[in-house]
Formats: sequence, structure tokens, C-alpha cells
Amino acid sequence: MDPNVLERLRDALRADQLDTSPSALDLHARGESWDAVHPPAIVAYPESTEDVRRVMALAHETRTPVTPVAVNSSLGGHTVPVSGGISLDLTRMDRILEIVAEDFLAVVQPAVTYPRLNEALRATGLFFPVDPGAEASLGGMASTNASGTLAVRYGVTRDLLLGLEVVTPTGQVIRTGGRAPKSSSGYALTQLFCGAEGTLGVITELTVRLVPRPEAIMGARAAFADVRSCVGYVTDVIQSGLPVARCELLDAAAIGAIRQHLGLELPDLPTVFLEFHGDDASVRSASELALDLAAEHAASEASRATDPEALSALWRARHQAYYAMVAVNPGLANVITDVAVPVSRLAEVIEGSLAAAERTGAPTYLIGHVGDGNFHLTLFFPVDDAAARARVEAAYDEMVGLALAAGGTCTGEHGVGLRKLPYVRAEHGDGVDVMWAIKDALDPGGIMNPGKKLPARGG
Amino acid sequence: MDPNVLERLRDALRADQLDTSPSALDLHARGESWDAVHPPAIVAYPESTEDVRRVMALAHETRTPVTPVAVNSSLGGHTVPVSGGISLDLTRMDRILEIVAEDFLAVVQPAVTYPRLNEALRATGLFFPVDPGAEASLGGMASTNASGTLAVRYGVTRDLLLGLEVVTPTGQVIRTGGRAPKSSSGYALTQLFCGAEGTLGVITELTVRLVPRPEAIMGARAAFADVRSCVGYVTDVIQSGLPVARCELLDAAAIGAIRQHLGLELPDLPTVFLEFHGDDASVRSASELALDLAAEHAASEASRATDPEALSALWRARHQAYYAMVAVNPGLANVITDVAVPVSRLAEVIEGSLAAAERTGAPTYLIGHVGDGNFHLTLFFPVDDAAARARVEAAYDEMVGLALAAGGTCTGEHGVGLRKLPYVRAEHGDGVDVMWAIKDALDPGGIMNPGKKLPARGG
Repeated sequence: MDPNVLERLRDALRADQLDTSPSALDLHARGESWDAVHPPAIVAYPESTEDVRRVMALAHETRTPVTPVAVNSSLGGHTVPVSGGISLDLTRMDRILEIVAEDFLAVVQPAVTYPRLNEALRATGLFFPVDPGAEASLGGMASTNASGTLAVRYGVTRDLLLGLEVVTPTGQVIRTGGRAPKSSSGYALTQLFCGAEGTLGVITELTVRLVPRPEAIMGARAAFADVRSCVGYVTDVIQSGLPVARCELLDAAAIGAIRQHLGLELPDLPTVFLEFHGDDASVRSASELALDLAAEHAASEASRATDPEALSALWRARHQAYYAMVAVNPGLANVITDVAVPVSRLAEVIEGSLAAAERTGAPTYLIGHVGDGNFHLTLFFPVDDAAARARVEAAYDEMVGLALAAGGTCTGEHGVGLRKLPYVRAEHGDGVDVMWAIKDALDPGGIMNPGKKLPARGG
Repeated sequence: MDPNVLERLRDALRADQLDTSPSALDLHARGESWDAVHPPAIVAYPESTEDVRRVMALAHETRTPVTPVAVNSSLGGHTVPVSGGISLDLTRMDRILEIVAEDFLAVVQPAVTYPRLNEALRATGLFFPVDPGAEASLGGMASTNASGTLAVRYGVTRDLLLGLEVVTPTGQVIRTGGRAPKSSSGYALTQLFCGAEGTLGVITELTVRLVPRPEAIMGARAAFADVRSCVGYVTDVIQSGLPVARCELLDAAAIGAIRQHLGLELPDLPTVFLEFHGDDASVRSASELALDLAAEHAASEASRATDPEALSALWRARHQAYYAMVAVNPGLANVITDVAVPVSRLAEVIEGSLAAAERTGAPTYLIGHVGDGNFHLTLFFPVDDAAARARVEAAYDEMVGLALAAGGTCTGEHGVGLRKLPYVRAEHGDGVDVMWAIKDALDPGGIMNPGKKLPARGG
């Protein structure tokens, strides 16, 4: 790194916006995942778009790598500054700038988390319906095209962005999209920066769509003897066209971890959790049909949940599932898959994946947004056991291979980061060359979150 | 153009796949709009992706402009070969390749029209819910990010694409997206090629999402004394969160044209047409609420329509509205606006636009997908009357200016083509530089549909 960068940053930002202390560098050296650790040289805390612009202009001039980060809940190494340089910590850009209820939109800075936005929206009757497991920031969610339990009804983050403000890798501030509900003007820059994982620019402002809170919500739960029966049931529920807002599958191990760690009473069986949104009559009839279908699929147990408190507790637990698994496997490292496949291929891909996991001997947990064909297997192993790690990595490769062979993707919602780089070429083929052409055009110096999202050229 | 291009094309394609006859060149010199006419040097009719690849490889090598076209229902000059070269007529690539009902998807070639796809889907209980006014091809709809009357419920074309096959301007065949319902892998190439109007490559195959046919459909219609009351009503309907699937506004002039040309009995007043999709109970209660709201807004007339035949006839008429206006203004040319604005700004922008139109003295018709904030004013004038034309063009500028000032877009669904080039820089600012960087990276020879979508550099 250019030795003058720190000095010149001191001209661009206030002293309390820069940190090179070992503790700050260490804090910014890792994400939630265990496997990649690399400290930045400098942590910068911009407080405005203008601050970001100054940092980027300087980074561009000095060819200094920049890695954006906010809440840092990435499970894929997205925020690890593998080439050093500047960790651009956006946590101070956390203002909700505007809520326009009559246009179903809000304008926020990137570090605003979705729970905080929803808290601010409480009085409007609207909400932002993307709910990844972590208390993620909207900037991070846009960067990974995050989704969560409600995507089957309301779409993924990319579907819910109206516009962005972005500082490009060369230090230009641009606005994408606008406030109209739809547009055919210009290239789809909003959608392109969404999911780019900070490799094409820094998102400094987001205009997001909001949706009306449903008039009525009803939950249903059906437990089955085995995972295959769960998936058969889910397939039927989805193909029935019911107004499904959530459709989650947890296997017995995942349910055990939640029970043990969070004290929720749940059956010791693989279980499908459904939620319907609509008016009173439609959620009632949908949940009745869901129970009828459960009986047809020989459910061991099936019930409806109408109590809002119980429903909330259930979904809070679901959002904590990853942390519950970590808690009941103290001292172990883990890898987590994130494949998504067409729903018709879900049964075979889950079964093949569970078989691959079983051969490793690793404690394994299955949770899935199965309405979207998306599921996660989390495998734990002792971090210092190279043989166990190799077995788990081999199983991971096998599981991704099964998903790709079924027309699926290596990542349904977490993003590529570092973790899924080996699979991107297999998934996208020569499309990767077009992605690199775009990357090179927008980031000629290669300074924006280098080493993430796209495999090495030819790799 | 390189004089050897035709000869080399003869090596690449069969004789009946090439046409340089005056009639073919003339047919490919124009779209639906009156104002731009330029013949290609050659019309090529590829029948496969490999044919397209050969044409593009040759065009790349010889720096020959290529303008893709299929049904040619563009209203914005998209398909006019303004730089000559090859008109790439994709009409022979019109096969429905696969329908996978259990995964709610279909795979089609670019010249398949949406009515034909829906015909083929009839037995599945699914449909493709984007319905622009013309019998458009899916390749064209993807290229302009088309929408129509159902977008307020089901989204625009970009929301309904799972993946594409594209031949790039350098002759590379790539696949974008896949079959999983969602993905966070790779850059959003599917979304980027969607709406690029053929300036970044040729779409040779599309994988589209399908949605279940609604269990129940109910229509409602409310006529008001003036357009402002219509818009006030629409704003309330949208903000009420009712399950609106269609929300169209036609002013008295547009209704008159439909009545006169299509013989449909409709009140001689500006009218809002609504349609609700859901189950029996929900569409019934939604339409009741819609009638209650109409009464609150002092509707002159309001009624429900439950008869499916009558509803179909109504929407067929709506889809023919543009052709009805043309028919009742024989010999006149027209321009058609396509702005979209936030719904809260709709009333003021429509009023300002109507005032601007009125000052021109031109016959003017208002129709709008107002649930999306999108509306069209069509103004007619004698094609040889330069003064009338100048007045209409000035009004057009003013109307787009009003939309942009309200945070809107110059085109909600038709695309930029040639017609809206003057407004793109005003709408996107320095974002246009990023668009050009992408264009130059993917099409270094500048051969893909040159002169469309992006204003001249610095323009």
C-alpha cells in the first residue's frame, strides 16, 4: 500500500474517523465465518456520501484496496480485507432518511438494519419484508441480494429496491433507479449493484419498496417421520398455489438445537412451518387446506397457530437457529451450504446432500426456505482436525455439485464472498467472462473488495 | 459496410435465410412509430442460436451494425436499423422449448408471443402475466422490460425472468441465471440484458416464471366527472392495500375511441377499471370495498363485473385501445408518452400533462396503468404540419419534464429506443457514464443496435 494513504486520509476525514489500532484491525479482519482472517491496514468510518467519495477517490488514485462492511453478519467472508488496504466501516451511516408511506417506499443509509426500519414503520401499516437470519444492514442485504423466510411471498432484496446511490470505484457518485414503481429507462444498474457484494462500488443510500402488513396471518406446522415426506408435502403445498408467505423446513437435529438452546417446545421430528398472509377468510381456508394436505401426506402431527405471540416466538427462534446450532456445538467450526434448486428437484438434492453429510460423520443440521427451493446444511467439525475438515469440504463440493446438476445455484441468498468462489465458473460458464468485463470496466484498478464474488480470471 | 459481408453471410446461412430485396429492406426499415425510417442493407433470418452466433461473429469481425427484431411492435424506434447493416429478424426462432409446470417455468425462443405461450399453458393452470398492448414477442418484452395491465400485481418482465441465453456482441454464447427460484451467485446479468433493448447482445432463449391462474377474478368499474377524481380514487384504492391485479384509467376521449372503433358500450366519462385476483371471498370483499370507496369519491357510476366473458371483452378492448385511437384518427401521425411517477404525484403530473397537451390543440387520449403510476398520453397531428409537430414535441418535452421532476421516469414500459434519448441524461445523470462503460466493455465495436437506449456520450 502507498505509504502516504494514511496521511492523506487524515486530510480527508476527521481523526476519530480513522483507526489503525490493533484491536480495530483485528475486529475488521473477520466476518461470522471462521475460515478467512486478514486485517486491513486502516479502518475508516465515513459519515456521509461525501466522506465515502473522498475515500474512494483517494483509493482510486493510490490503487488501495477497499472492503466495505457494516453489521458484518456475512457467512461467506465478504467483509474480510484479504488484500489489506482500507476497511470501509459504514456503521455510522445509519439514518432513516425518509419514509413515504403513500408511495410504499423508504430511503435509508446503508447501515440501517431491517429490524430497525420495521420498528420505524410500525405506525404506517407497512413493512420491509426481507428477513435474513441475522440483524443485517440494508446495505449488506442489497450487496448480497439477501432474502429469508418471506421471499416466497414478497421476493428477494433485488425485487424490493427502487433505487440506489453508489460511489463508484473511481470516486464518482451516481444515482440509479428512482421513485416510480417501474421503469424501462437506462440499464438495470440498481439490479446490477444489488448482489455485486461491494465489488462494483459502495452503496451509500437505498430507496426500498415497502409492502402492506397483511390483514391476517395464520401459521401451520406439520411434522413427518422423515425429511423426504416433508419435502413431498412442501412440493404439494407450493404447487397448490396457496398464498404461502413462509415455508420453512427444519430437520430433527435443527429442531433439537432450537429446543435445547432457546427452550421452545417443538416435536422431535422433521417439521414444516408454514405461514399464510391475506384476509381472515383466505388465511383460514389456506391453513385448512394445508392441514388437509398434511393428513394426505401422513403427517405425524399437524396443527394451526393463530396466536400472534406464539407465531412471533416461533419465527424469532427460526431466525436464531444458526446461533442455536453454534451454541450447542461449542468450540467447533462450521461450514454452511446455501444451494437453491427448482422445487421439483428439491427431494433428490436434499437426500443426496444429507447422504454426503452423513458420510463425513460431522454433526449436521438442515434448515431451509424450501418454498424457494433454498436450504442450508450446516456441518460442524473441530477446527484443528485437518482430516475432518477435508471430509467436510469434500462433502460441501459434492452438495453444490448436486444442486448445479439440478439446474440450481451455489448460493440462494448468502452470496459468493470467498466461500463459493470455486463453484462460480461451474455455475455460470462463459458468463463469468462477461462479469469480468463489467468488473474491469467499472473498477479498472481492481480496488473494490478484491478477491470476492468472481473467481480468478480463467478460474 | 464491408462489401464482403453479404457474401460471407451466404457461407454462414442458407440462401432462404437472407434477403436484400427492396420489399424486405423496406419492411425492416420501421417499427410501429411513424418518425424513424432507415433500411438495413441485409435482412437475416436465423433459425437457431448457432445461426445467431455465426452472424454476430461475422458482424464483430467486420464491424457491421446488427439490429435485432421479432414481432416489431415497438413504439419507440427500437428496431429501426439507423446505421444500416444487418436487421436480425428472429421470427423463425419461435418455439416453446419446455414447460415445467411443477417448477412454474417455461423455456421459449425469443419470437414466441405472450398470447401464444398462454395458449400453450392453458391446461396447466398457470400463465405468464405480462400483457403489453401489442401481441409482443417475449424476446422483445425482455429487451424493453415490458409490462402492461397486470404489473401492479405480478411484476414487470424483469421480475419474471429466471434466465436467458444471450449471444454477445463478440459472438460468445452465454447463459445467465438458471432454474432455481432465487440466487445470489454472479452479477445480475439476466436483469442487465433485460431492458438493454438489444444494445448488449441478442437474446436467443428465455426461461420465464409462470404464476397460478387466480381461483377467482372480479372486475369493478367506476366513472367520475373528471380525471382528477379518477386519480384520487385510484390513489385511495392502491393505498388501501386491496389485492388489485389491474388498475387502469381511460379518459373520455380514449373511451370514445374504443366505443367508436370496437363497439363496446361504456360510459362517456373518465373511468377507472379494476380487477381483483384471489379466492372467491377475497375478490368479493375487495370489489365491495372498491365500490364503497367509489361512492366516497362521488363516482358518477360504479359497478361490478363478474361475468368472465364480459371481463375478457373489456381487457381485449383495452389492449386494442392504441389501435382504436389510430383508427379514429386516419392519416394522422402520433406520439405517445410513457412516463411513470410515484402514485402520490400522479394527480399533479397527469393534470399538468393534460394542460400541456391541451395547449397544442392536438387530439389527445389518456390511458394509464395508474396502479403503477404509469400513463400514456397519445397526441395526433398531421405528419406534414411542421408547426403542429413542433407544438406536440414541445408538449412531449414538458410532460417528461413534469414526470422527472416528480421523481419519475421517461419510460415506464416502452423503453427508450430513439424516442426518449433526449431525456435519459436528465433522468440518470452521471449514471449514464457507468452505462456507457458497460456498453463499451460488452460491445467494443459498437455494433449492437447502435444509436438506441443510451444518448450520445456527453449527450
